[in-house]
Amino acid sequence: MESDLKEQDFDCVFRPASIALFGVAPSPTNWGGQIWPGALLDLGFRGALYPVSSRASEVCGLKAYPSIKDIPGTVDYVICCIAAEYTPQLMRECISKGVRVVHLFTSGFSEVEGEEGLRLEAEIVRIARGGGIRVIGPNCPGVYCPESGLSFGFGLPKEVGRVAGIFQSGGHCIRFVQLAAGRGIRFSKVIACGNCCDLNETDFLEYLAHDPDTDIIACYIEGVRDAGRFFKVLKEAAELKPVIIHKGGHTDAGTRAAASHTGALTGADEVWEAVCRQSHIIRVYNVDELVDVVLAFHFMLPPKGRNVGIIGGGGGASVQAADDCESAGLRVPLLPRQIRDELRQFTPAPNNILKNPIDTQWLMWDTSKFAETVRLVSRWEGVDFVLTPIWTDMFPLSEMGNLLDVMVEAVLASREVCLKPMAAMIDPGTSAEAAASAALARERLASAGLAVYPSVARAAAAINRFIQHMEFRGSPEHPDPQSRLRWPKTGTRPI
Amino acid sequence: MESDLKEQDFDCVFRPASIALFGVAPSPTNWGGQIWPGALLDLGFRGALYPVSSRASEVCGLKAYPSIKDIPGTVDYVICCIAAEYTPQLMRECISKGVRVVHLFTSGFSEVEGEEGLRLEAEIVRIARGGGIRVIGPNCPGVYCPESGLSFGFGLPKEVGRVAGIFQSGGHCIRFVQLAAGRGIRFSKVIACGNCCDLNETDFLEYLAHDPDTDIIACYIEGVRDAGRFFKVLKEAAELKPVIIHKGGHTDAGTRAAASHTGALTGADEVWEAVCRQSHIIRVYNVDELVDVVLAFHFMLPPKGRNVGIIGGGGGASVQAADDCESAGLRVPLLPRQIRDELRQFTPAPNNILKNPIDTQWLMWDTSKFAETVRLVSRWEGVDFVLTPIWTDMFPLSEMGNLLDVMVEAVLASREVCLKPMAAMIDPGTSAEAAASAALARERLASAGLAVYPSVARAAAAINRFIQHMEFRGSPEHPDPQSRLRWPKTGTRPI
Repeated sequence: MESDLKEQDFDCVFRPASIALFGVAPSPTNWGGQIWPGALLDLGFRGALYPVSSRASEVCGLKAYPSIKDIPGTVDYVICCIAAEYTPQLMRECISKGVRVVHLFTSGFSEVEGEEGLRLEAEIVRIARGGGIRVIGPNCPGVYCPESGLSFGFGLPKEVGRVAGIFQSGGHCIRFVQLAAGRGIRFSKVIACGNCCDLNETDFLEYLAHDPDTDIIACYIEGVRDAGRFFKVLKEAAELKPVIIHKGGHTDAGTRAAASHTGALTGADEVWEAVCRQSHIIRVYNVDELVDVVLAFHFMLPPKGRNVGIIGGGGGASVQAADDCESAGLRVPLLPRQIRDELRQFTPAPNNILKNPIDTQWLMWDTSKFAETVRLVSRWEGVDFVLTPIWTDMFPLSEMGNLLDVMVEAVLASREVCLKPMAAMIDPGTSAEAAASAALARERLASAGLAVYPSVARAAAAINRFIQHMEFRGSPEHPDPQSRLRWPKTGTRPI
Repeated sequence: MESDLKEQDFDCVFRPASIALFGVAPSPTNWGGQIWPGALLDLGFRGALYPVSSRASEVCGLKAYPSIKDIPGTVDYVICCIAAEYTPQLMRECISKGVRVVHLFTSGFSEVEGEEGLRLEAEIVRIARGGGIRVIGPNCPGVYCPESGLSFGFGLPKEVGRVAGIFQSGGHCIRFVQLAAGRGIRFSKVIACGNCCDLNETDFLEYLAHDPDTDIIACYIEGVRDAGRFFKVLKEAAELKPVIIHKGGHTDAGTRAAASHTGALTGADEVWEAVCRQSHIIRVYNVDELVDVVLAFHFMLPPKGRNVGIIGGGGGASVQAADDCESAGLRVPLLPRQIRDELRQFTPAPNNILKNPIDTQWLMWDTSKFAETVRLVSRWEGVDFVLTPIWTDMFPLSEMGNLLDVMVEAVLASREVCLKPMAAMIDPGTSAEAAASAALARERLASAGLAVYPSVARAAAAINRFIQHMEFRGSPEHPDPQSRLRWPKTGTRPI
């Protein structure tokens, strides 16, 4: 089944001029009703918003209309949170009104047990195709597009970025956006497409592959309807930009859960494994890892090799960091005597291990000496990139906030003089106060354009995947002439 | 080298009547100086405290003495933060005063490069042996014993518990205590023993194995001086109570870092692997995992098998939970039709997947219906234990605190009616506010006696290790007659 999508369809998917909202009267047991229109107002949707309600005359300060035909202007896009049984009638009203896209947040279709859900979903598709309407969903939060102000949640970044996402799980989608946003990622378009009854994961992937506003594509896929077309589009996309896929349902129970969730036929795991390998898709196994790998691609220049210089930490933490990096496939080379002697000139013994990992207390006490340590290590040809771990929970809480500030300053200062790609790590903290302080410190590092990881192990795993991928591609300085990869684009990312 | 330790030595290690503190005048570039005596006052040390200072007449409100011989009463224990070069003289003064135990926080001994540190450490041992003094360290924070009020940090639990720890890394030790305390663990004795020049990891392990106040022993070991004795003691200890070991330095770079950290000869990883397997030691690979496994042993009754019922979450989260559990070696059995029908009676479709994982929104909206779901699932013989995941970051921050409260209530209520062992999961949150709310929610669950994990993957890995170990041992109901394991003791742990 080839796509017959027109460019205008997607214009309307991501940049509708007007939206009508059904089923949005807030009620404590109706989560959907609580999201919209608050989320759209929160993000500053730039078009017209029309709540439809037979009971209220106003919703969230917006004039409500008793039915769609009472709305004075045109309606491009509909967000539907009413019960599944009423959706066929809604679809017919949308056709009469000239609506172009309907997003069904509503669930109770092919994902539930029994024939009725399947029948209803097929009816929706039939009505949509007959009336020239495109459908997003059902059973999903839909689209987040900061450029136009489309949103499915609260507190999402208003700024536009260059990372896109396609998710066959609303929960994973929102979690991905929250986690990645908190680590400095900004987005072009993110789509939670649920059961994919009409517009599906492949349609969105094809669009994003050619979208000039998107550099990196993150996906959560449970299953595809047309595997042949999907894998063809996937291969094409991966030739143009990095595609990172979290495939849900790779065990028996996971596969069964996926069938119950989005009605997905997940496909044999071996097939996915082979396709990912052949197409240079980066495959990951959970949302955390998806964010971790996106972060490396987004923030780091490709290291030329696997040799990491680890600077900051403590004795035990250094042993752990070395074990974690080498277990992940990186190398932690011994610093040559000459560099250790240079470091020793301004780093008194004892309590500072200078071999790599470098357990230097300057991270806590002296910003300029920490920066000088990073500069000297990064200058050595034996190191390809630098990782700077910060540990929390080591100090009295009363002092921790201040000490974290000092450590963040030290990492930011060192970044200015670091001669190789660099990534940061900050431990998430334990108590409520420590966790909050650590989150703020992480946000400061992230907003300065650093890839920040919550553990050395996760940093090492993600950066190793990044290096592995760039070895296939050739680095920007030594591009693989066979590669059509147009990424990374000069100037789109911080160094 | 057999131990010649007397019971009195350990009495004095854990319950000294008086402590003299050297090198404790607070200074911003002297971390050691900042810890004591603040930490001891914070925990409420029950004996006499004597700061020794040639400059100050008072430290932290305590009368200071110009030298140890000026202290009026006897001194059992000394905490030393002065520079390494002055420690031999200090040791001699301690002998004159009749001191029993010296804890050297001071570093700059065998862990640093060169002969001088080795020589100095040997001299300390020679003086100590000659004068009948026992030494803890050097290069370590020493002892935390809430019973007597000995402490190496701030904000540590004052209550006494039944988990002990031995750590050849001060950083890992403090991190372990902070992480475990935040998840409800309380401690009998925790020792960070650094370079182990006199009292070493084996001495402490032997003591804790027979300590009636200790049920579970957690260790971080980089290397041992007398492998024969250590492995003999380890085997004996593991016959008496669960011993969980994090062995630092299992890669080339990690081994090198361990040598620089505590001067450890780490030993071949294959030997450690074989010894742990033969002695029924639970081996883990980082501090997080150490805490995770301790938690399962401490809070859970042993499940009879690997079948887990997962209740709560969302669609994508359920797929992930199923994948994570089965990947870790657990099983996620399909609920039989009869139980699904029972659940369906009070759980309207759609949006609630009832097959296992059970994606029920009652977690958010209805405490008693969630509890009833847990009761019905735990009653089924096909399920051996129950896991209840809570996801944060899904809601507007303004509402999240309240919703987390509701979800915590639901989990606590369900625990009252759960007919099988149970564990909880709460996602740590992203933003500073979410992270703080999640930490508080975790503390509520933990203080109610639930094992709480930050991800399903980590819960599954830890609980699988617990089950695996108990299969060796026989369960409390079906004890292995060959086993001398005196654990778990009836009544020492919540169910």
